[in-house]
Amino acid sequence: MSAPDTVTEWGTPNLGQTVKITAVLHEEDTPFQHIQIVDSLQYGKMLILDGVFQTSEKDEWTYHEMISHVPLMLHPHPERVLIIGGGDGGVAREVCRHDCVTQVDLCDIDGRVIELSKEYFPSIAKVLLDPPAKLHVHVGDGIAFAKSVGDFYDVIIIDCSDPIGPGEGLFTREFYRSAYKALRKDGLIVQQSESPIVQQHLVHDIYCAMKDVFPIVRSYFSHVPIYPACMHSFMLASKVYDPLTAEISRKAPEPMRYYNEKIQKSCFVLPNFYKECLLEGKMSF
Amino acid sequence: MSAPDTVTEWGTPNLGQTVKITAVLHEEDTPFQHIQIVDSLQYGKMLILDGVFQTSEKDEWTYHEMISHVPLMLHPHPERVLIIGGGDGGVAREVCRHDCVTQVDLCDIDGRVIELSKEYFPSIAKVLLDPPAKLHVHVGDGIAFAKSVGDFYDVIIIDCSDPIGPGEGLFTREFYRSAYKALRKDGLIVQQSESPIVQQHLVHDIYCAMKDVFPIVRSYFSHVPIYPACMHSFMLASKVYDPLTAEISRKAPEPMRYYNEKIQKSCFVLPNFYKECLLEGKMSF
Repeated sequence: MSAPDTVTEWGTPNLGQTVKITAVLHEEDTPFQHIQIVDSLQYGKMLILDGVFQTSEKDEWTYHEMISHVPLMLHPHPERVLIIGGGDGGVAREVCRHDCVTQVDLCDIDGRVIELSKEYFPSIAKVLLDPPAKLHVHVGDGIAFAKSVGDFYDVIIIDCSDPIGPGEGLFTREFYRSAYKALRKDGLIVQQSESPIVQQHLVHDIYCAMKDVFPIVRSYFSHVPIYPACMHSFMLASKVYDPLTAEISRKAPEPMRYYNEKIQKSCFVLPNFYKECLLEGKMSF
Repeated sequence: MSAPDTVTEWGTPNLGQTVKITAVLHEEDTPFQHIQIVDSLQYGKMLILDGVFQTSEKDEWTYHEMISHVPLMLHPHPERVLIIGGGDGGVAREVCRHDCVTQVDLCDIDGRVIELSKEYFPSIAKVLLDPPAKLHVHVGDGIAFAKSVGDFYDVIIIDCSDPIGPGEGLFTREFYRSAYKALRKDGLIVQQSESPIVQQHLVHDIYCAMKDVFPIVRSYFSHVPIYPACMHSFMLASKVYDPLTAEISRKAPEPMRYYNEKIQKSCFVLPNFYKECLLEGKMSF
């Protein structure tokens, strides 16, 4: 397949990130989205959904470690974990490293993301290629999946694309109410919640929607180089445990490339503009 | 002046950041560098030196607050501050907010950056336009300036461009030795030290060079949206005060848009890859 020299993601209509590529390895339209897999010189192979950079071989751990270990370490004894989205397997890989976790359900709406990740991203999809007994992969609608259970999961991780396209319903109060019911009485949920720099209105909206359903909602960040403006937010909503005050007694799996014990707390220390965006909806950029 | 539609900075040969612009407001070659000032839709007016995005109206405080207040708050009573580079006036603006500071020397090699900043970036250059009595602006070589004094400054801030071009000499052991001598016996110096994601070798080299001269060297970060990969590192070298353990008793000036009391500590909590880059020279990207 012939390749253009570069691929650009327009994170906003006025801001682009461009990577030089050597090949378009795969491209298809599924019933849910347009999938591209390219080989880039900066970040290795990259998964692009509907034109949005999703993950890459070289930077994927900046996202997968932080969306997984921060909520799992906050819970004192997580046993059952639900991952919605996450078809590339990166979150499942990190979650399965926790020995106390006995059941991991992964539910992605697009089976093609799962199959292509196994083929093109074996280092990310390694638990999909060689699944441990505790991992169960479901192809289907995560919203319906969450609705079908009650009082069951300790941690739910929403590893979805942007709230435009197949991920849209995962950002609603209705979905958060289903997730609340699907969680045990001390359960918690985390969701990727876009950039606090170039998608400030979304960060505020997600915070407000979660705050209507859960008593504790805190935001934290990771640096994800392939995402627009690179500072990426996560929203953690919890019934009992508060990341700002909780004592963490368990030891995290090792080794880690991004996460460490001190980051468990420091990632919740937000610059003023980010706090103002979150709590007041103030736009700084 | 007619304008192209976009300006792209190639942070590495394989990674570009592109902003849509409405005008090139100014362009000239000085004896030191190529200066461009553009009006961008995403970040407002932007200063570009030798093709590298330096600062913008909308994101400048993410850099200027963090390079200024972290070292100034670490020092229990900073009186005399030297800024090398910083011709746009943003660091001087933040430093002058500290009432305990009685003398601020700003030494930039390129007088045209100072003049153009006053004309095009009045919000950044406000203390250059209306200088308080304690601010003294010098146009000249910062290396020679630092060499000319001994046992004088409490804090030195190196707000320079990349170590290619006019900033090159500011990244050498020889310069750090001059800076050490120019500082009082409990003085400290901070320098912008590039991206721990896309300029990992530089971050390690700067750390090693400073560590040969100063007993305490710590790195911290800010998120600067216009810089490559947006995570930007600073290197703080100190004779006495250690940012990891120091108690901060003074109150910082208010209001701040990025900096706060908790960030004074949390900005030194580094992801594993960053620590490994710093201490071991390990490249993760």
